[in-house]
Amino acid sequence: MAIRDHGDPGDAPTMPPRLAEPANPARPSAAEEARTIVASTNSGTLASLTADGDPWASLVTYGLLDGQPVLCVSNLAEHGRNLAADPRASLAVVAASTDPDPLAGGRVTLAGVVERPTGDEAAAARAAHLAGVPAARYYIDYSDFTVWVLRVRRVRWVGGYGRMDSATGEQYLAAEPDPVQPHAAGAIEHLNADHADALALLVRVLGGYPDATAAVCTGADRYGLELRVTTDRGVAYTRVGYARRLDAVDELRSATVELVRTARERAAGG
Amino acid sequence: MAIRDHGDPGDAPTMPPRLAEPANPARPSAAEEARTIVASTNSGTLASLTADGDPWASLVTYGLLDGQPVLCVSNLAEHGRNLAADPRASLAVVAASTDPDPLAGGRVTLAGVVERPTGDEAAAARAAHLAGVPAARYYIDYSDFTVWVLRVRRVRWVGGYGRMDSATGEQYLAAEPDPVQPHAAGAIEHLNADHADALALLVRVLGGYPDATAAVCTGADRYGLELRVTTDRGVAYTRVGYARRLDAVDELRSATVELVRTARERAAGG
Repeated sequence: MAIRDHGDPGDAPTMPPRLAEPANPARPSAAEEARTIVASTNSGTLASLTADGDPWASLVTYGLLDGQPVLCVSNLAEHGRNLAADPRASLAVVAASTDPDPLAGGRVTLAGVVERPTGDEAAAARAAHLAGVPAARYYIDYSDFTVWVLRVRRVRWVGGYGRMDSATGEQYLAAEPDPVQPHAAGAIEHLNADHADALALLVRVLGGYPDATAAVCTGADRYGLELRVTTDRGVAYTRVGYARRLDAVDELRSATVELVRTARERAAGG
Repeated sequence: MAIRDHGDPGDAPTMPPRLAEPANPARPSAAEEARTIVASTNSGTLASLTADGDPWASLVTYGLLDGQPVLCVSNLAEHGRNLAADPRASLAVVAASTDPDPLAGGRVTLAGVVERPTGDEAAAARAAHLAGVPAARYYIDYSDFTVWVLRVRRVRWVGGYGRMDSATGEQYLAAEPDPVQPHAAGAIEHLNADHADALALLVRVLGGYPDATAAVCTGADRYGLELRVTTDRGVAYTRVGYARRLDAVDELRSATVELVRTARERAAGG
């Protein structure tokens, strides 16, 4: 699913290839990744069109109505005038990251058109914006502010270097934000602090790196663990998928215990 | 200079007005604020135009060549194709903030057109991008990557609620990033920890709030101090300007000592 948009990485750090297929490469779809990033914060940058048709980038806050961004902007501000004159818009949202390289992190662009919600949706959109942006209670009812719902037509997700894919608006709306990833930091810390040997076993037996000498868990989502692998051939990244999709972060512990048991059985020739 | 785009704040928290004119309201211009925000980081969100003329928002990294953003993007990526087909672009940059309300912080939009630098400027632009984005050394020389300089035609700065202004491209290029603001955190902490009485005196005598019971320094730039003021009428924000513009953060201490001496003399009827 992930696509490399560039060819040979030249003199960039190269990654030793897997020596075996990973047992279960299941991972979130682009639509799921996008929903997760968009749900992780309440601000992004809007691209709208000026009266001359020029692209205009500006900070906006948003709430979410079934995954659709709900904006609340003043008609006195440039982006408010732009949306009122031409509904075409896109919203870029960047996931929080501690990596010093901004391009190593996840981000998403949602493109479509904004619409003023009417009827029941108007009340739901107002509530959704206020839920996402509590400070909006001070201005949402001013006459110069308009609530807009971004109807998402297409989605471009970039997960970092070499991980990117597109999704349709329908796929985006049908997907769920990941229920595990935003809450997994504590579990990941525990895995790395207390179960380093088990993680190395996982990538040797199930992650396609039988020559791994160490592994560090760098992420967890509802489908599996992300792992950084040390081998004598260099550092690589792989995944180990759980036996089944998780629906809550409190299932993470039993899923990883089961993975380790499976890896031990296979390592023992089971 | 700062313009309130909205009228009466309704039931938003109201700020007690000044009871006297501040002695020296000098503050950075919109162009200076913009230069300072743009110099504070190396990533922002680009708005470009798709083949259909739709606005496309996407994360980019940049270096700075005399204040002009220098991008390096792949022609295989959507924003790279967009810029190659239509040079109109704008870049939104958001200042780092610890405020939970994203709209309380500073941000800027630089709008103009991108151009491929040639001759000496091509080498300078490449060096500027690499200085801002060290990781670009891994891909800047790939054939699918293009270095673009954003020729800034107009600038919109928003400093937070009720603080906003525009600048021309010429004003932006002629301005300097503030030499004090990015380095003032330690001095501000010291002022608040050890000189609370002096800060309250400053806002009573020089800041237009003779009824101030307390003051906290919330920022410092080359022209003066930003202060949050407590009065029996409520909480307000004001500025106290130094006697002269500073050119380096190490001038901040003597400038604030001088301000306090002036305030004491005036309070004593001098």
